[in-house]
Amino acid sequence: MAQLQALAGDDTSASEFDRDTAVTPRPGEPGTYDLELSAGWTIIAAINGGYLLAAVGRALRDALPHPDPITVTAHYLTASQPGPAWIRTQTVRAGRTMSTGQASLFQADEEGREVERMRVIAGYGDLAALPAQVHTSAAPPVMPPYEECVSADDAPEGGPVTGSTAILQRLDLRLDPATSGWAVGAPSGAGDMRGWLGLADGRDHDALSLLLAVDALPPTAFDLGLKGWTPTLELTVHVRGIPAPGPLRVSLTTRNLAGGLLEEDARVWDSADRLVAQSRQLARAPRG
Amino acid sequence: MAQLQALAGDDTSASEFDRDTAVTPRPGEPGTYDLELSAGWTIIAAINGGYLLAAVGRALRDALPHPDPITVTAHYLTASQPGPAWIRTQTVRAGRTMSTGQASLFQADEEGREVERMRVIAGYGDLAALPAQVHTSAAPPVMPPYEECVSADDAPEGGPVTGSTAILQRLDLRLDPATSGWAVGAPSGAGDMRGWLGLADGRDHDALSLLLAVDALPPTAFDLGLKGWTPTLELTVHVRGIPAPGPLRVSLTTRNLAGGLLEEDARVWDSADRLVAQSRQLARAPRG
Repeated sequence: MAQLQALAGDDTSASEFDRDTAVTPRPGEPGTYDLELSAGWTIIAAINGGYLLAAVGRALRDALPHPDPITVTAHYLTASQPGPAWIRTQTVRAGRTMSTGQASLFQADEEGREVERMRVIAGYGDLAALPAQVHTSAAPPVMPPYEECVSADDAPEGGPVTGSTAILQRLDLRLDPATSGWAVGAPSGAGDMRGWLGLADGRDHDALSLLLAVDALPPTAFDLGLKGWTPTLELTVHVRGIPAPGPLRVSLTTRNLAGGLLEEDARVWDSADRLVAQSRQLARAPRG
Repeated sequence: MAQLQALAGDDTSASEFDRDTAVTPRPGEPGTYDLELSAGWTIIAAINGGYLLAAVGRALRDALPHPDPITVTAHYLTASQPGPAWIRTQTVRAGRTMSTGQASLFQADEEGREVERMRVIAGYGDLAALPAQVHTSAAPPVMPPYEECVSADDAPEGGPVTGSTAILQRLDLRLDPATSGWAVGAPSGAGDMRGWLGLADGRDHDALSLLLAVDALPPTAFDLGLKGWTPTLELTVHVRGIPAPGPLRVSLTTRNLAGGLLEEDARVWDSADRLVAQSRQLARAPRG
């Protein structure tokens, strides 16, 4: 019976990422999409910001004339909750090779009032149509092979994460041992985090899931010896190429913690050694 | 007579930067500001994007409850022209320590229709109220002292810039000789640009002028051996501190030119060796 459902294209056959970022155009309201935020992408007490961005990115992909996110900026305004949500999109400018869009994610508060969770502005294009020329001096991170990196299953009890780790069940994440010392109380202090990142159900990455990938590793704050939640104020992602199949290598660095804020830079390489995404976020440093 | 005007607070006594980014609230339209875009910040055939961002930043400073830009993202939609313009701002969220705002810059086209030039989303706060704690491993760029760096006056005729260089008269810019070889046909190929940056009239930098500073040096594309205009698609600036008096050191790097697009990262240090701003822009690479 389960097999029949899968053959019939039932939702249970879809990837967790695609299922949980699915958006439905709202009849009679062009540019508005309904969705259900899943608790499956929760970390500590919050829904992961990269997951939220991918969902908004999917709505913009439908609303805009170009298929791929090229540059996406999100401002996180209030804490999203699992459950019903809706996205309103606006086409700011539709050009020949790129279009610009804006989107807001909303939920209802306890009194039923609409509350804005995040606001996004984005440039979309067609990655496959860009010239193939690459001139790069960026090198992939030096890290051990996938088999020698550590998964959450290897972590001892305790550590800086108290609360939900639901998102770890969605990810195939293996951290470079050099940046996982924080899990046993020995952070390097450098502000680095590196790892291999796939999706647990084997779905390959694409341009949309790169919006998740840049924000899916543990925060660099852990490697600085800080504990607790690192709320993102703003996150900007540049998608620079369509990732080849296979796990990504993601490298995060924080170099400047000042005034209670820190930047977290992500660089993402695919299995063909191509730099497929860069991002920077500004986050509030944990107090711990 | 000139002296009397200056004593009376005439506009001629203001700095060029303050005069050319001045915005006037439009009576009866809360959140809307009029301004005059100056031709004095033109490079090649376009008005500098950092100057435009500073003007929009000034309007948001007036509209929002917090004084300082902390994270500002601009999408450049159409080419701005010298002359009348207006900015519409919206307060997205006013929090205790930070507020979020949005703004659009408009001009009229030849038929008098309103055309959007750029769209901005920004988080504002109070830099002076942030905790003084700094934990940084970022180091200022290694470059010669101001006196040994080269100004535009030292440049020979020719070079990759054809068109207006008006902005150079507004800036006190001295480039590291190691990154100015492009001016004599010998780019390093590394994609670097470094220099000292003051304002020509001696006005000290502040949080607002950092929005100009991150986009005021020649493009890194010149150091890659490319010529011509490098139009910015999107620029995000993080202001991390109020700059101490004196010229800034600005370091630009480009590491990945792919698909006809490149990132340009800026880091800005003040005279007290503090990293006061970071930015990244995504730009179209010149064809040359």
